[in-house]
Amino acid sequence: MVAFDVGGTDVKAALVDETGRIVELLRRPTPLDGERTGDAVIAATVALLDDFRRAHPEIRPMAAGLVVPGHVDEARGVGVLAENLGWREYPFRDLATQSLGIPVSFSHDVRAAGEAEYRLGAAKDFRDVVVIAIGTGIAGAIFIDGTLFTGGGMAGEIGHSRVADGPECACGGRGCLEAVASAAAIARRYTALSGVPVAGSREVLERARAGDPAAGRIWDSALDALALDLSHTVALLAPEAIVIGGGLAQAGDALFLPLAERLEGILTFQRRPVLLAARIGENAGVIGAALRARELLDVVDPGPDPAPVRERAR
Amino acid sequence: MVAFDVGGTDVKAALVDETGRIVELLRRPTPLDGERTGDAVIAATVALLDDFRRAHPEIRPMAAGLVVPGHVDEARGVGVLAENLGWREYPFRDLATQSLGIPVSFSHDVRAAGEAEYRLGAAKDFRDVVVIAIGTGIAGAIFIDGTLFTGGGMAGEIGHSRVADGPECACGGRGCLEAVASAAAIARRYTALSGVPVAGSREVLERARAGDPAAGRIWDSALDALALDLSHTVALLAPEAIVIGGGLAQAGDALFLPLAERLEGILTFQRRPVLLAARIGENAGVIGAALRARELLDVVDPGPDPAPVRERAR
Repeated sequence: MVAFDVGGTDVKAALVDETGRIVELLRRPTPLDGERTGDAVIAATVALLDDFRRAHPEIRPMAAGLVVPGHVDEARGVGVLAENLGWREYPFRDLATQSLGIPVSFSHDVRAAGEAEYRLGAAKDFRDVVVIAIGTGIAGAIFIDGTLFTGGGMAGEIGHSRVADGPECACGGRGCLEAVASAAAIARRYTALSGVPVAGSREVLERARAGDPAAGRIWDSALDALALDLSHTVALLAPEAIVIGGGLAQAGDALFLPLAERLEGILTFQRRPVLLAARIGENAGVIGAALRARELLDVVDPGPDPAPVRERAR
Repeated sequence: MVAFDVGGTDVKAALVDETGRIVELLRRPTPLDGERTGDAVIAATVALLDDFRRAHPEIRPMAAGLVVPGHVDEARGVGVLAENLGWREYPFRDLATQSLGIPVSFSHDVRAAGEAEYRLGAAKDFRDVVVIAIGTGIAGAIFIDGTLFTGGGMAGEIGHSRVADGPECACGGRGCLEAVASAAAIARRYTALSGVPVAGSREVLERARAGDPAAGRIWDSALDALALDLSHTVALLAPEAIVIGGGLAQAGDALFLPLAERLEGILTFQRRPVLLAARIGENAGVIGAALRARELLDVVDPGPDPAPVRERAR
């Protein structure tokens, strides 16, 4: 299989053999080209597949997995909208299938990463799970009784839950979780408060630990917002486990211990979820894409005529 | 079928014929007896079944549906906890099956009412739905892709989502939706603010309309809290429809119009749910219980020996 994870800055591609092992991982800058970004992404995947074929002629990829950010309609195979990447109603699945010449599974990056954690990583022992990625943004993947729930591609947008009176969010809302507690927001809010530029949320945490009161205030408010949002998720869905990944999760105990404590301070009779750090890490998206590609092979019966294969691959 | 909906004040019982028509509906005060309330409820269902049999000897109920409030574990058939009714880990399904002598389906009152709305009422045209009952308390039933999701009996407890800094909630939490916006809370908070006793939330609404500023404040804060909570539900689950029932829904447009407007004021890119008033009304619980009882008959093959029937009825 071959798997592609299209991000805001780069495209990650993995060549995966029949046993599920990653044979090679490549990374290229995402070809941002305004409204033509969709076409440029497809062209990039074709070039990456060619590179894999040249470097590993012994491996013949039979299916591809492609995941992208934004609003994704998995049922139709369409990238509905990714504001910062430029496409709108772009039929990724069909165009990638044509261009790559193999069946393509198309899905959402956070949901694919969530599936990797759900099937192979931190959440594999549970059936009702929410996997949350906290990085530049905040989004989640919801597993209900063993099945990913996409809500027409709109479920799991917990980054855009209102948890405070402010600040303004890129989505046009106010007080969204993502505007308070994403890794990017923590760095941005600290700089706005202190006037001190920082490399990222990790530096804000370090400054908070060193006694910087502005950093402590920003870090605390992010933890409060995350705990409040998790408490809403628990009240509504009562998941057995909540897995947190993305850049912020790398803070480890500095995130998980105070978060669990604050969540416990809000909950009363509700079922307590196990709070877990994501295990698969930054390749979860591309591994999730490969899992989807493999599923495609499981249902495809490769006959002499490639056309019905593509049909069934939907 | 015969169906029982056990509430905090009364037990509703319905005799339903093969066509699904309610032949007779009886209502008795709930036999509150501390820790023995579970046993007393079972005895009441037996007496009600006897009454139905005497009044309608031509109908032979072949299965029963029993629904109760509180924390219900449907898989085990156990009423885990109902603080104001007194039972704890009470094996309703097995004891009712023994005492009634017919297969019994046991479930949660709000989820059963939700199923009635989902299958026969306001939500029947949708697959991803949240049905919310707002009365003395607030709780919801979640349908994901056509299936009720119970979360081990703990999902849908949206009444205990924190939406404000106060007031204290009966669950021990603070700022729970139920403590701000349930019909009971609206009446209680108005009286606390104004010193004026009222019959219920309807009277608070009438006073708000007549220009009473205290009533307006309480009503507005309840609408704000409900809209905020719905916005969280939308961000997380992106349901196609949200159905609201229970006493407060009887306010009609006075509830639904400002609620929709406030929700719209919070949401940005999210999928907009259709907001619908429950259609089935106060008998939704007992109708949901009857639906569950009918399901039991669908899977039961009544043979000469009753024992295996009971076994399979689980």
